Amino acid sequence: MLSTAARARLTVVLVGARNPSNIGAAARAMQDFGFSDLRIVNDFAAPFEAAQLEAASLETKSAVAAQHVMRSARRYDTLAPAIADCSLIVATTAIGTRQLKHPILALQQAAPLILSALTPADEPNSSPSAQDPRVALLFGSEKTGLTNDQLSHATLLTTIPMYSPEDARHLSMNLGQSVAVCLYELTRSGFEASVEIPPVHEAPATAEDRERLTQLLLDVLHATGYTRRFPANAAEPLVRQLVQPLGTSHREAMTWMGIFRQILWNEHQPK
Amino acid sequence: MLSTAARARLTVVLVGARNPSNIGAAARAMQDFGFSDLRIVNDFAAPFEAAQLEAASLETKSAVAAQHVMRSARRYDTLAPAIADCSLIVATTAIGTRQLKHPILALQQAAPLILSALTPADEPNSSPSAQDPRVALLFGSEKTGLTNDQLSHATLLTTIPMYSPEDARHLSMNLGQSVAVCLYELTRSGFEASVEIPPVHEAPATAEDRERLTQLLLDVLHATGYTRRFPANAAEPLVRQLVQPLGTSHREAMTWMGIFRQILWNEHQPK
Repeated sequence: MLSTAARARLTVVLVGARNPSNIGAAARAMQDFGFSDLRIVNDFAAPFEAAQLEAASLETKSAVAAQHVMRSARRYDTLAPAIADCSLIVATTAIGTRQLKHPILALQQAAPLILSALTPADEPNSSPSAQDPRVALLFGSEKTGLTNDQLSHATLLTTIPMYSPEDARHLSMNLGQSVAVCLYELTRSGFEASVEIPPVHEAPATAEDRERLTQLLLDVLHATGYTRRFPANAAEPLVRQLVQPLGTSHREAMTWMGIFRQILWNEHQPK
Repeated sequence: MLSTAARARLTVVLVGARNPSNIGAAARAMQDFGFSDLRIVNDFAAPFEAAQLEAASLETKSAVAAQHVMRSARRYDTLAPAIADCSLIVATTAIGTRQLKHPILALQQAAPLILSALTPADEPNSSPSAQDPRVALLFGSEKTGLTNDQLSHATLLTTIPMYSPEDARHLSMNLGQSVAVCLYELTRSGFEASVEIPPVHEAPATAEDRERLTQLLLDVLHATGYTRRFPANAAEPLVRQLVQPLGTSHREAMTWMGIFRQILWNEHQPK
């Protein structure tokens, strides 16, 4: 599980995002996965201001959650000052036609490198401070992605691998979805511990329950003429296998017994 | 890597989605990750028809890609007929207050079960046919998620684990982002093989390169008076560590040497 201090070290940078709804969707994904530092690089302020207004005006639960991220988000005219306090600069990019000097790592290959930068081994339990190394995760504009100039700021390139039988160059993912998938990958390894699996309070079915079910079903098959028509299917071992899923809990097994008994009772009534 | 036949066996079912843009976003995520069978359960047709119109009218590359999924999507009035040909029914749900009979698996715990249902061991290389078991992945409406009645159709419950220091009950994720994260998890294990990592053609820097860099930088530190002011920082072992990142490739190392030589040359010019 990523600590709160480690999460606080990650900065999401949206470079040239034009659609306010996409900025809001990115903020919401950050909130969902427990990250909060959002920076917008754009030489005009309109999309960012519109996204802040939109977040502030919505009243659904999810929008309220994203407002926290949007309120503390900051805008920069250019990329360099937006990432000045970050050490590892991870750029997300589609595998395309651009001239690539560095290899691109698949997201799940890049994730361990990002995680170790977020949690330096020498200070696993300390609180974050201004001196701590920050990690920037860069996302390009909806239309063009990150330019070669913007990519040149990166120390690590990563891509969300997508499915393309024909041509990988035409793939580009929705901005909010990209942010969600990246943050999911960064946090998924710690998830097991954080998910509550409700305890099953019900008593499990016993072998006795299952045997009674088996005999009742055999009676039903016989009484209804099934055994005569399909003798191979009505062999006892096959029927015993058949009732296995009916006996997960004692209560369920009892319910099924009741059903079988009702069928038998009905069968013996005069027509 | 999930085969094309295995991908064809997965059906994404959106139950009660109201926002046409969310339906389109789900279709786009499916296209991105190589899935194509989308079914919409809604007792009125408006959101589905609007999503189809929206997909058909957009002309961006990504929208064109999603049109393929939207064109073959089908609408059902109720859930049962939409999943009639599916065997494993996986419902996505937030961990909330509803009465849960079954345990909820975290997405990454559910994924192996889903994957083995998509690729039955006895027919790993066959083409999909009408008899093959299908897997349905259910997503609820934006507002309420899946109801208890809808959840009762499920044979497996899963949740995308999210971060909630205060209260997990209030979390719900954007529909398109949920679909993207689930399909990413299902396909991520096969990604390594599908991502092209461009080969690095450049000759790596040698130890000799790095040693020349070290000596040049020591000369620079000395010539510029740095050594006198900060003798502790200018110790040779520290400087040798310092130049390590400059010598990734021979070409880069040569470039740095040129820079250091220029500094030295300039230092020795008359002021």
